[in-house]
Amino acid sequence: MPIKLNDTYLGQGACRTEAAAFLPLLRDADEKIRNKSGAGNDYVGWIDLPVDYDREEVARIKKTAAAIQAHSDIFVVIGIGGSYLGAKAAIDFLRSPNYNTIRKRTPDIYFIGNSFSGSEILEVISLCEGKDVSVNVVSKSGTTTESAIAFRVMLSYMQSRYSKDELRRRIFATTDAHTGALKQLADENGFETYVVPEDIGGRFSVLSAVGLLPIAVCGADIDKILAGAAAEREALFAAGLSNDAYKYALYRNAFLADGKEVEILCSYEPALRSLTEWWKQLFGESEGKDGKGIFPASAIFSTDLHSMGQYIQDGRRMLFETVVRQTECGCALKVPYDEADVDKLNYIAGESLFDVNEKAFLGTLYAHRDGGVPSLVVEYERRDEFSFGALVYFFCLACAASAYILGVNPFNQPGVEAYKKNMFALLGKPGYEKEREALLAKINS
Amino acid sequence: MPIKLNDTYLGQGACRTEAAAFLPLLRDADEKIRNKSGAGNDYVGWIDLPVDYDREEVARIKKTAAAIQAHSDIFVVIGIGGSYLGAKAAIDFLRSPNYNTIRKRTPDIYFIGNSFSGSEILEVISLCEGKDVSVNVVSKSGTTTESAIAFRVMLSYMQSRYSKDELRRRIFATTDAHTGALKQLADENGFETYVVPEDIGGRFSVLSAVGLLPIAVCGADIDKILAGAAAEREALFAAGLSNDAYKYALYRNAFLADGKEVEILCSYEPALRSLTEWWKQLFGESEGKDGKGIFPASAIFSTDLHSMGQYIQDGRRMLFETVVRQTECGCALKVPYDEADVDKLNYIAGESLFDVNEKAFLGTLYAHRDGGVPSLVVEYERRDEFSFGALVYFFCLACAASAYILGVNPFNQPGVEAYKKNMFALLGKPGYEKEREALLAKINS
Repeated sequence: MPIKLNDTYLGQGACRTEAAAFLPLLRDADEKIRNKSGAGNDYVGWIDLPVDYDREEVARIKKTAAAIQAHSDIFVVIGIGGSYLGAKAAIDFLRSPNYNTIRKRTPDIYFIGNSFSGSEILEVISLCEGKDVSVNVVSKSGTTTESAIAFRVMLSYMQSRYSKDELRRRIFATTDAHTGALKQLADENGFETYVVPEDIGGRFSVLSAVGLLPIAVCGADIDKILAGAAAEREALFAAGLSNDAYKYALYRNAFLADGKEVEILCSYEPALRSLTEWWKQLFGESEGKDGKGIFPASAIFSTDLHSMGQYIQDGRRMLFETVVRQTECGCALKVPYDEADVDKLNYIAGESLFDVNEKAFLGTLYAHRDGGVPSLVVEYERRDEFSFGALVYFFCLACAASAYILGVNPFNQPGVEAYKKNMFALLGKPGYEKEREALLAKINS
Repeated sequence: MPIKLNDTYLGQGACRTEAAAFLPLLRDADEKIRNKSGAGNDYVGWIDLPVDYDREEVARIKKTAAAIQAHSDIFVVIGIGGSYLGAKAAIDFLRSPNYNTIRKRTPDIYFIGNSFSGSEILEVISLCEGKDVSVNVVSKSGTTTESAIAFRVMLSYMQSRYSKDELRRRIFATTDAHTGALKQLADENGFETYVVPEDIGGRFSVLSAVGLLPIAVCGADIDKILAGAAAEREALFAAGLSNDAYKYALYRNAFLADGKEVEILCSYEPALRSLTEWWKQLFGESEGKDGKGIFPASAIFSTDLHSMGQYIQDGRRMLFETVVRQTECGCALKVPYDEADVDKLNYIAGESLFDVNEKAFLGTLYAHRDGGVPSLVVEYERRDEFSFGALVYFFCLACAASAYILGVNPFNQPGVEAYKKNMFALLGKPGYEKEREALLAKINS
C-alpha cells in the first residue's frame, strides 16, 4: 500500500485487544461502504472517483490551468470549508506553505470567501492592482453567504478591470452540474464551469474539480494525484478487512472507548499544517454528531512541542496522537560543522536534518508513550503528487469506516445549519421571520 | 479596562455559582501574584514589565528596527516556542497574516529555527538571494537544538555574503544578559545583543526584547504596545479580585470542574489566528501538568464553522468557547447591490461586512449555547498596538491566576524536557549515554 499504518509503537497494550473487539462493527461498516448501503449513501461518489472520474473534465482542467498560468499573476479561489481546504492542503504539501512568496513561474494563489473579514477581501484586491487576475469560485449552490459576498465583491472588481470577453477567460465556476445560483450566474455570463459532483460532499471532494483546478494552477500534476488515490484505493480494497485504513478506524474507536477523546494529528514537516486542517474537517464533521466523536486537533512538531508539548506530555490524559510521517529524506541539508562549537552542536555535525527530525520523532513518540499518550503512525514516502492522492484516499476511507463503527452517518453535517439559521434570522433574511422573532426574544430575555 | 470579559451570554446558569465557589482559591492566587510568593515566583517579571521595562533597551530596539528597515529587504527571526509566537501574533494582528505578500515599506519577515525542516531553512535562504538580509536569533541559552541548527546554517550563509563589519550591522542576538552559548557567540563576533529577562519565561516574554524587536521591524509602534499593557495592568489591579482577567480564570476553572476539558479560543477575524497559537502555548504550557489542565484549541470563525462547526454544535459535550471579539468596525467594505440578485444577497446589500460578521458571531453564540457549548467573550476595541498590548497582559494575568487556582505552577514546563532527553539520547549527545542505552533497549524490545 502506498500509505502504511505503523502500529508497532503501541506496544502490546490493551488497545490491540480493544481494537479487535470492534471487528464485527468494522465488518458491518465495510459492507456499507462496498455496497454503498449505509447511512448517507447518496454521498459515496468519492469511493470510485479515482478510477471513475470524468476524463474530459480533467483534461479541460489541465488546459484551463495552463491558460491561467500563462495569462495571470494572481489566482483567487473563493470558497469555504471543503471548497478550499483540500486545495490549500495540496499546494502547501506539494509546493510550500510559503507558496505565494517563493520564486516560481505559476501565479500567486489567494483563498478568500472563507470568512466575513472585509479587510481580507480588500487586501487581496489591493494585491491584484496592476497584476493580471483570474478567479475560481467554488460553491455547490452559489448561495453560501461567505463565498457569495466575496464573489460579488470580486466580480464587481473584475468587471471594472476586464471586458466581458476577457472575463470569460478569467472567471471559472466550480458548482452544481445543473442547478443553483452560481450555475445560473455562470451560464448567463458565459463563465466556464466545472462540476461539484452531486454524490460527493465538500470534505470528500478534493480529488474532484473542486480541488483539482486550483491544484493544477500551482503547477502540480493532477494525473499523478489521481493515480496515487487509485493505487491506494486498489491496495486498500485488495487487503480487505485488514487494510491499514480500516486498522486506523479500529484503533481510533478503541482509543475513544478508552476515554481518549482528543486525537492530535501531527507531522514533523511544516508543509503538512494545511493537510492537518483538511483532516480536522474530514473527521470532525463526519464524526462529531449525536454527542459523539473524537475531538480533532493538530500540531506540527517539533515546532509545537514548544507550545503544546507540555500539555501532551503531562496534562489531562485524554489524548492520543496520529503522526503523519515521511519515510524518504526530502532535503539534503546537513548540520554544518563549526570549529569553535560554542553552541555544542558538533556532535551532530554532518547529520542531515531529516535524520535529526527522525530522532525527534522517535524520541517524542517514546516520551509521549511514557506520559500516557499512545501514537499511531501513518507513513507516506515523499511530498509528491502520488503520496498526496494516496493520503487523501487513505483518510477518506478510514473516516467513513470509523464513523460507521461509531454509529453515525459519515456524510451529513446537520449541525452546520444551526449557526446559519440564527445568522439568517439576525440578518433579516426573507423566510426567517419566525426564527428572528424567537431569537430576538431569547437575546433580550 | 481596555479589555472586557463579557459574560452576559452565559445566561444565569450553574457556571456562575460554580465560578463563585472558586473565589477562595482566587483570593489565594491573587496574593501569590501580588506578593510574588507563589510557585515559580522566580518568573514573575512580566507582572511589572509594562511599567518597569528597560527604557534604554526599548530606545535601542527602535533605533535598530529603523536601521533594519532601511538596509534590509528580508528579516529572518530564528526562535522556537515563546521566542517567536508572540512576535508572529503581533505582526499578523497589527499588519496582516499575509504580511510578506502585502505592499509595504518594511522588510519581509520569516520565522525559522522552529522545526527541524531542512526545506524550510533552504527555502528562506533561496528567498534571500539577491536581497539584503538581517537576522535576529532569539534563544536564552543559545543551545536550543532547533534554533541553534538554523542559526549555524544562517550564520554561515550570512558570512558568505557579508564582511565581518557588515555582519555586525545585520545580526542581532536576543539572549541571556550574561551567560550562555549565544551570549558568548554574540560577544565574540560583536553582534548587538538584547536581553531575554531572567525572570520571565518564554511564553510570557512577548513584551520584552524577545517580541519587541521583530514587532518594531514590521513597522508597529512598540511604545503603544507597552502603553496598552500598562493601561490594562493598572485597570486590572485597580479592580482587585473582581477584575475581568480573574473572572476569566474563575470561569475557566468552573467549566473544567463541570467536565468541559477543551477550550476553543476563537475569533471572527483571520488576523487573530497567530494570536490563538500564542494563547495555546500560554495556557497549555502553564496549566497542562500533573495530569491537569484544559486542553487548548483554537478556531477562526466563520471559516472553521465549515470544518469544526459540526463537532462544536453536536459532538461530545466537553467544550466551551472563548471568543476574542473586536468591538469597533475596522473595515468599511459593504455587501454590494446587484440588480439581478441571482445569489439572493440583496437583503443585506449595503450592510458592512463587519455587521454581517457581528451577526454571525451572535447567531453562532446562541446556536452553540443551545448545543451545550457556552461562550465567554473577551472584547478589544480595534486591531491596534494598544489593544494588542492590553490583550497580552489580560491573558498573561488570567493565565497565572487560572493556573494557581488549578493548583499548578504556572511558570515551569518540566514536560518539555522529556522529548529532548530522548532525542539527545538517540542523537548520541555526550552525557546522555545511559539514557541512550535505556531507550534503545526499550525500542528494540
